[in-house]
Amino acid sequence: MSLFEAVLSTSEMRGVFGDRSVVDAMLRFEAALARAQARLGLIPASAAASIAGSCKVELFDVAKIVRDSGRAGSIADPLVHSLKEAVGLFNADAVPFVHFGCGAQELVDSAMALLTREAVALVDADLARAVQALLVQAERHATTPMLARPLGQPDTVTSFGRVCVDWAAPLARRRERLAGAARRALQVRFGAGDGVDDRMQGQGAVVRRQLAEALGLRDPGADGRSERDDWIALGCELGLLIGSLGRVASDIALLARSEVGELAEGGDPARGQRPASVVALAAAQRAPQRVAALLAGMPQAHSPGSWQAELAEWPQLLMSAHGSARALADALPGLQVDAARMLSNIEQLRLDPAQAEAAGVQALAQVLVLQSASEPVDPSDIAG
Amino acid sequence: MSLFEAVLSTSEMRGVFGDRSVVDAMLRFEAALARAQARLGLIPASAAASIAGSCKVELFDVAKIVRDSGRAGSIADPLVHSLKEAVGLFNADAVPFVHFGCGAQELVDSAMALLTREAVALVDADLARAVQALLVQAERHATTPMLARPLGQPDTVTSFGRVCVDWAAPLARRRERLAGAARRALQVRFGAGDGVDDRMQGQGAVVRRQLAEALGLRDPGADGRSERDDWIALGCELGLLIGSLGRVASDIALLARSEVGELAEGGDPARGQRPASVVALAAAQRAPQRVAALLAGMPQAHSPGSWQAELAEWPQLLMSAHGSARALADALPGLQVDAARMLSNIEQLRLDPAQAEAAGVQALAQVLVLQSASEPVDPSDIAG
Amino acid sequence: MSLFEAVLSTSEMRGVFGDRSVVDAMLRFEAALARAQARLGLIPASAAASIAGSCKVELFDVAKIVRDSGRAGSIADPLVHSLKEAVGLFNADAVPFVHFGCGAQELVDSAMALLTREAVALVDADLARAVQALLVQAERHATTPMLARPLGQPDTVTSFGRVCVDWAAPLARRRERLAGAARRALQVRFGAGDGVDDRMQGQGAVVRRQLAEALGLRDPGADGRSERDDWIALGCELGLLIGSLGRVASDIALLARSEVGELAEGGDPARGQRPASVVALAAAQRAPQRVAALLAGMPQAHSPGSWQAELAEWPQLLMSAHGSARALADALPGLQVDAARMLSNIEQLRLDPAQAEAAGVQALAQVLVLQSASEPVDPSDIAG
Amino acid sequence: MSLFEAVLSTSEMRGVFGDRSVVDAMLRFEAALARAQARLGLIPASAAASIAGSCKVELFDVAKIVRDSGRAGSIADPLVHSLKEAVGLFNADAVPFVHFGCGAQELVDSAMALLTREAVALVDADLARAVQALLVQAERHATTPMLARPLGQPDTVTSFGRVCVDWAAPLARRRERLAGAARRALQVRFGAGDGVDDRMQGQGAVVRRQLAEALGLRDPGADGRSERDDWIALGCELGLLIGSLGRVASDIALLARSEVGELAEGGDPARGQRPASVVALAAAQRAPQRVAALLAGMPQAHSPGSWQAELAEWPQLLMSAHGSARALADALPGLQVDAARMLSNIEQLRLDPAQAEAAGVQALAQVLVLQSASEPVDPSDIAG
Repeated sequence: MSLFEAVLSTSEMRGVFGDRSVVDAMLRFEAALARAQARLGLIPASAAASIAGSCKVELFDVAKIVRDSGRAGSIADPLVHSLKEAVGLFNADAVPFVHFGCGAQELVDSAMALLTREAVALVDADLARAVQALLVQAERHATTPMLARPLGQPDTVTSFGRVCVDWAAPLARRRERLAGAARRALQVRFGAGDGVDDRMQGQGAVVRRQLAEALGLRDPGADGRSERDDWIALGCELGLLIGSLGRVASDIALLARSEVGELAEGGDPARGQRPASVVALAAAQRAPQRVAALLAGMPQAHSPGSWQAELAEWPQLLMSAHGSARALADALPGLQVDAARMLSNIEQLRLDPAQAEAAGVQALAQVLVLQSASEPVDPSDIAG
Repeated sequence: MSLFEAVLSTSEMRGVFGDRSVVDAMLRFEAALARAQARLGLIPASAAASIAGSCKVELFDVAKIVRDSGRAGSIADPLVHSLKEAVGLFNADAVPFVHFGCGAQELVDSAMALLTREAVALVDADLARAVQALLVQAERHATTPMLARPLGQPDTVTSFGRVCVDWAAPLARRRERLAGAARRALQVRFGAGDGVDDRMQGQGAVVRRQLAEALGLRDPGADGRSERDDWIALGCELGLLIGSLGRVASDIALLARSEVGELAEGGDPARGQRPASVVALAAAQRAPQRVAALLAGMPQAHSPGSWQAELAEWPQLLMSAHGSARALADALPGLQVDAARMLSNIEQLRLDPAQAEAAGVQALAQVLVLQSASEPVDPSDIAG
Repeated sequence: MSLFEAVLSTSEMRGVFGDRSVVDAMLRFEAALARAQARLGLIPASAAASIAGSCKVELFDVAKIVRDSGRAGSIADPLVHSLKEAVGLFNADAVPFVHFGCGAQELVDSAMALLTREAVALVDADLARAVQALLVQAERHATTPMLARPLGQPDTVTSFGRVCVDWAAPLARRRERLAGAARRALQVRFGAGDGVDDRMQGQGAVVRRQLAEALGLRDPGADGRSERDDWIALGCELGLLIGSLGRVASDIALLARSEVGELAEGGDPARGQRPASVVALAAAQRAPQRVAALLAGMPQAHSPGSWQAELAEWPQLLMSAHGSARALADALPGLQVDAARMLSNIEQLRLDPAQAEAAGVQALAQVLVLQSASEPVDPSDIAG
Repeated sequence: MSLFEAVLSTSEMRGVFGDRSVVDAMLRFEAALARAQARLGLIPASAAASIAGSCKVELFDVAKIVRDSGRAGSIADPLVHSLKEAVGLFNADAVPFVHFGCGAQELVDSAMALLTREAVALVDADLARAVQALLVQAERHATTPMLARPLGQPDTVTSFGRVCVDWAAPLARRRERLAGAARRALQVRFGAGDGVDDRMQGQGAVVRRQLAEALGLRDPGADGRSERDDWIALGCELGLLIGSLGRVASDIALLARSEVGELAEGGDPARGQRPASVVALAAAQRAPQRVAALLAGMPQAHSPGSWQAELAEWPQLLMSAHGSARALADALPGLQVDAARMLSNIEQLRLDPAQAEAAGVQALAQVLVLQSASEPVDPSDIAG
């Protein structure tokens, strides 16, 4: 990742999709698979113990697996190869039961679901902070008179509190929708291949259900197969969220222009000018195209390159989403509101600031409604 | 619309977004608004009667309204102007109550919601037919042996019935999601402007609720304002649907290649080669970009041109969706299945066709589950 | 085309890609083909005379051809069928020589090149007007002091004349590049199919060269085949132009905001607020996605639906380009410049307006350089 | 960069846009700037010597500069700050002359031009190898009979040599166009700000010209300012190239399907199946969206976030381009051609393989024409 990319995301999210974290998620899947298969008598309990015992990321040369994946064009084969080596050191009999009956794509997709659950929880937490910060501002400035600019042009009088509520409402709504989309999308993958059920002695569906429970992912059931529509739908939801965050940033950037002068982003001056709106608007310029890249792969689901393209786009969408949510969550509490300038901008157009009272009443009523939506969600609930 | 565009959609959908239909939807909104306002004593009952009586599309020179909208850069003003003229012919006193307290964008957005409800119902009906046709094929060919080609390459043996079920499941799922997204998105717009509530004597929210009931649209409540996130989310859902339809078309196109030869699209030979897959794949190539255009407008919601861009993209997304759903719904019942070729392709790879039995059992179980999802939805329920 | 689409383009451009115009271009190709083949003795001179004589759009039922193309999934077959019927009425012997040795795609692509040449000439003419208008403003306001806002924020002092030159320079550059891209892209198509050269008695390349000359299109030579890269490159060039026009519109929209107040779009007040920037910015929001749709089709060039998707996107890109160029060409001459407000905005920041002098000198020097580039190009030269 | 991204590019290209390389390019710019300014007497010669002497990447803590750029939201300020510190250690008097009269964006954009020149040279070299490999195959298989599949369906008989030539021709053409686009786009940036020329004692244009010469970049002249249209045009050209490479990969993937069986990608079996087409097709699915992201920023050129979005997208487009070109250049020489299967596929359709002779004659003629275009370009010529 170029440094130009890095400044638009967060170190936490880079960590989630970092090499070590990806390998770790794959190992967690393999351990859970071996345990589930042993529980059902499909592989020996001793093999499962050896496999699960070896599935510790600190035992592996992550850099080598990544290098080999470059040559192999896939991360799955080098990972399974290394795991077999590790298992073989202690229990050669267990080696044939590593990754038993499992496809490469099932391993990688399940690991991506695990990583994405963490990623969505990061986004959610900052989104909750951003909404909360807006509600605090909405209460503080419930009746602070401000020009309404419905199509970008000053029009009537509203209050800054109502503007904050109008910013918060779609963010709260997108937060709820994101949780729903994640619940549907974060699925375990196993047993889709024809013939696998035979090798699982007719218990393929049970293995998948137990895997889902152990990993905290959804069991897609028989119809899940390798269909990716709900997965891409989660990508769309991230695009909608980034668009909604971008909308807030775009408004703030406008109000912070020197000619308007009603707002200023506070915070560390060493960070330069308007960093939150820079990050959020950069994300909003890029995200629609990433969503398009994911959608474009749907009809080609089974063509060479399409899955790989999707895998490469996916972390970047989450990096943009978290970069944007974090930037706004950090900046909104310290937003500097110039109430005097707001008033003088109203007076210049000879409008009546008293109209802000009615807007304030509406804003406060809305704050109460939205308050409930701003509770941080327990990360483990995302796919609960 | 160029003829190259027209062949990729349907005449019904072109009708929904045709000039006359757009004007009619705007008039329905204005009539419902006047009635709601009269009921609440905000305008005289006689004015509402005159207005509602004039809101009949056959009384208007649609071509002139469209021409004037080209000059004005908006359809709202010419429509309201023409309506005032029409009302004034019979009841000059009613003229000031036309479009009372309503914004241009509220009129157009509400009309678009009315049109989109019809459009989604058209898509839904053909989608139901497509799913139903796949389930019929799934039953008929439950155990017809066929190569599985999970990453585009022959692999193991499945049955054509199971393939049909795998095609049907995401379509049934997208159909359900589309209905949900439409329920959330199809909102009436009224009363967002600051100060409007005063003019409505504090009853702006009641007017909006009654309008919503009369028109069968959702009342966004106070938080709805002019936020478009759930509206764009419906656009994303259409993109996901077109992608899922494209996936089926892409598989059919592959299986119909002369080197594979397992399927052929039936139907009128005068329509040329593979028309359903042509239409569905053309839609799938274009839709991701339209979704991106809609998402790209979100941060610019209040900038000049952004709303206009969205209005122009919107009908085209629905035209692609209906073109694709209709093409598959028409083609799937007549799909010609060459079971002998399927078998010989299996034998060429020395695989065992008997494995199709297990796939068939799974397919039939899935058909029962999906059967329920394929009932046509009553169009009036879409936004119920 | 929905009316929401129509208001963003021009009636001239809608005419170029209208049904009658498309049929006419196809007939012009067929006539030229017959004449070239007769000249080389490949078909009888009498047949060519009959064919060319029948290739008059007023003899055809355009609506029927379009209807039939909806059923056939292609415009080529119904056109050729109708032409054979028309020729057969007078000279049954000529019928087998209609569309002799020609592919459906060759006919349609060549016709699209003819139409696109007209379309590019329309864009070019308005682009020249827009550049010219900017140069006139640049001279008029060479030293009018104005704030420079390099990253959207006021910074130093420049002159409005220099701003106009900075707007004009990329438009002049894109205009030149567009002409170059058109010269490369506007190719005739003929003889690509294997075996055609045999039927042309080894003179396939000569037929193509003569066709190219007769129609004023480029002869791709042997390497042209059905490769579309230079064609899609023309689409990219249109996207770059729309982006550059959008940049000017975006600046004007900012400067016209009531808080800045330095510019106002003049013209017919009945057209509502800021129509030129609305049209140009709507185009700029949509064009990147259309370019992406064209690029996305490149790898799928030979897959079902890809060509059809390209054909449908193409006219819309040109409609956006012309809508944008026309809107700016119409608006720029009447731009209302509030020099007093420019000055007071400078004074509010305590900057020195005298710095505008140096900017003015640079602006005038640039005007001279750009003057030459603003001559209208003879439309017949576009593909000369 | 996630490992999913890394496997789709090359280590060379990751190096070009790696942190150290970016810092190095910025230092090269600063050294050249100081030297040019000293030559013109704008800064003391001793200051320039100190500055140029300190502009060595090994003297800097690259990781710290990158960390600080995360906080500052820009790489320019931390780099300049570090450079001033380094210069100050030896010559405190030189510190005020570091980065003299230069803007942050000018520094970063010029550095990006330097890096992009290296990047384009990498792409060019592999592109030349790919074209060369195709011409070798074209000669070897000039008359090897093969089915032509113009719209994806077998049709007539051609030769594999002609197919190779048809693949090579657009690649050779795109290679030439890429060099032209790079020549126009790779510009130095300096002196655009109003007032800078004063600080340069009227010699701002001379400084820029000397900088351009020293760095081997183009001097945009007065009209260049911060306009990005030719820069984005280079991005479009990369998109076109990736599309053309994807087209070849898509054809190979089809011909390598087991049902067709005419080609196989050779090479290291440990790399798994079809890696070149996987990489090239993944690039082709993603590149259109990146081009769209670049185009989408054009109208927002001066809005917050837009430049940052462009900087982040840019390296990824070049990584895709090089990944794709390298993958094909590596795979094409070892392409396994199954001439017997090609023949049997022809015979199955009862077509005449003798038609390959004519195609072979055309192929060989084309090879001669294309031969000249496949010479590797001297990297230093790219922006010469």
